[in-house]
Amino acid sequence: MLSEFDLIATYFTRSIRCSERIALGVGDDCALLSPSPGMQLAISTDMLVEGRHFFPGANPYTLGHKCLAVNLSDLAAMGAKPLAFTLALALPVTEHDWLQAFSQGMLALADEHECELIGGDTTKGPLNICITVFGEVPLGAALRRDAAKEGDDIWVSGTLGDARLALAGYRKECRIDEATLHAASKRLHAPTPRVALGLALRGIAHAAIDISDGLFGDLRHILERSRLGARLDVDALPVGAMLAHQPQSMQRNFALTGGDDYELCFTAAPEQREAVLAAARAATVPATRIGSVEVAPGLRLLDRQGHAIESEFASFDHFLSP
Amino acid sequence: MLSEFDLIATYFTRSIRCSERIALGVGDDCALLSPSPGMQLAISTDMLVEGRHFFPGANPYTLGHKCLAVNLSDLAAMGAKPLAFTLALALPVTEHDWLQAFSQGMLALADEHECELIGGDTTKGPLNICITVFGEVPLGAALRRDAAKEGDDIWVSGTLGDARLALAGYRKECRIDEATLHAASKRLHAPTPRVALGLALRGIAHAAIDISDGLFGDLRHILERSRLGARLDVDALPVGAMLAHQPQSMQRNFALTGGDDYELCFTAAPEQREAVLAAARAATVPATRIGSVEVAPGLRLLDRQGHAIESEFASFDHFLSP
Repeated sequence: MLSEFDLIATYFTRSIRCSERIALGVGDDCALLSPSPGMQLAISTDMLVEGRHFFPGANPYTLGHKCLAVNLSDLAAMGAKPLAFTLALALPVTEHDWLQAFSQGMLALADEHECELIGGDTTKGPLNICITVFGEVPLGAALRRDAAKEGDDIWVSGTLGDARLALAGYRKECRIDEATLHAASKRLHAPTPRVALGLALRGIAHAAIDISDGLFGDLRHILERSRLGARLDVDALPVGAMLAHQPQSMQRNFALTGGDDYELCFTAAPEQREAVLAAARAATVPATRIGSVEVAPGLRLLDRQGHAIESEFASFDHFLSP
Repeated sequence: MLSEFDLIATYFTRSIRCSERIALGVGDDCALLSPSPGMQLAISTDMLVEGRHFFPGANPYTLGHKCLAVNLSDLAAMGAKPLAFTLALALPVTEHDWLQAFSQGMLALADEHECELIGGDTTKGPLNICITVFGEVPLGAALRRDAAKEGDDIWVSGTLGDARLALAGYRKECRIDEATLHAASKRLHAPTPRVALGLALRGIAHAAIDISDGLFGDLRHILERSRLGARLDVDALPVGAMLAHQPQSMQRNFALTGGDDYELCFTAAPEQREAVLAAARAATVPATRIGSVEVAPGLRLLDRQGHAIESEFASFDHFLSP
């Protein structure tokens, strides 16, 4: 069996490229990071547990990708540029094939975003992956949850609900064919963090959040922290390509409450509509206007005709779900 | 049962005091941190797993203390001043009493070091605590593992081996009385990170490391990264107050290889002896000279008379131990 130090050296130690910002990477008591002058450091941490955030026996390559992707998605939601990350890993056993695929999946995405692995910890234990990610954002330019303004448009990137559809397929909540499940499951297992869009929205969007637990619940975080309410046009929601073939009630439900899509939900003044669309084009991801921010608290769901939709939606909560 | 968001709000959200450096704490996609100009950020992450790093049913107050203490110890070993930390927590259930005691133990130590909790993640899962800690150190002033120089004295802070003695008592490897076990176990359960000493050693010490896996193995990390060797006077090791009453062979073994003491091992030029002792006095912790750095690779153990001690010592490795 590999020792802890061999494990780090074999799979996770690489020569550091960004020597100006990263003075010292894996292998000392601490890593050393020098943010550029005038920049704030944006920091986020996510812990993924087997059987909770991913299936036991999950493909290690896509798992490695997803663990970093969900963290990069938090940077995207702040408009921060990825810089570096640390990885803490509890493993029941050390298997070469698993570690090789896992580290390759993770480091391929890291390379894509020039995000360096600068430190970490490994231990024996039930499979648990905890990443802390660091990004840079100019002082005052971060897209904060508390920055929505009355009258703002509400936007969402990409499409919603296909990740939830895949989960429904795996759980046998509904019957979908193999091809549909396969296509939808890519959204579940290998989400694309909207980093380029987050950067392009600096100075254009007011508030932003990434949709990890479902649009309904995540948008509410923006509204609560901004002390505002909103109306959503449920028929305007950009439904995932696979979900679009399902019944309307499922489309609405999964687009509103499905987690794991890792799209961005953000608000911007109506004067910025052209700028938002240009930013989305530059980031090669669609952006769809789905509602507007209002003074009255709460979240009102309307159909295309402006009729209220009665619903009992809730976003995902790790301690309230079974 | 508490929801994930209630849990964070109830136990871990506090008003942030250091508003100049910490722009945004718990509750957004990312925390925002602004290191002071001319400072590097020192970053370390440690993951603690139940049954591995602490006993099932461990006292939650001291557990909260220890989880942060081991991370602060990494900052101490770099000469970095604590700034902030993130906490990711997997819990099988949410119990009020446990969470209250755990957060109090952790936040009491955080307050002592003015180290703010700025973000985190909570999820359901086998008990796992992952902390990432951030400190500041002036550019170029970090005490790195690769900075030992030929002829340096080797020093250790405080005393060694009492944490290992407590572990031996719990494991029934040896017979020790209740009072001894009680006193020794404080070193195991509630280590004191040597933050003040690390800061005082800036500009005086060359290389430093904190002793988490045992002096023998941890000193070897300094030597390997500095491409040097060393001789150690085993009879000079500052043996813990409880361990000092045990047989000599156990004293040597536990002082050399016992982990969990979280003392600092560091090297400094012989001209700095007075300065090291003054730094230790200022930090109110003893410092003891235990050997010297040599060109010949390897670690040579000698007794007071200069005779070589034959030994088969190894430090703790999470994947090689059962």
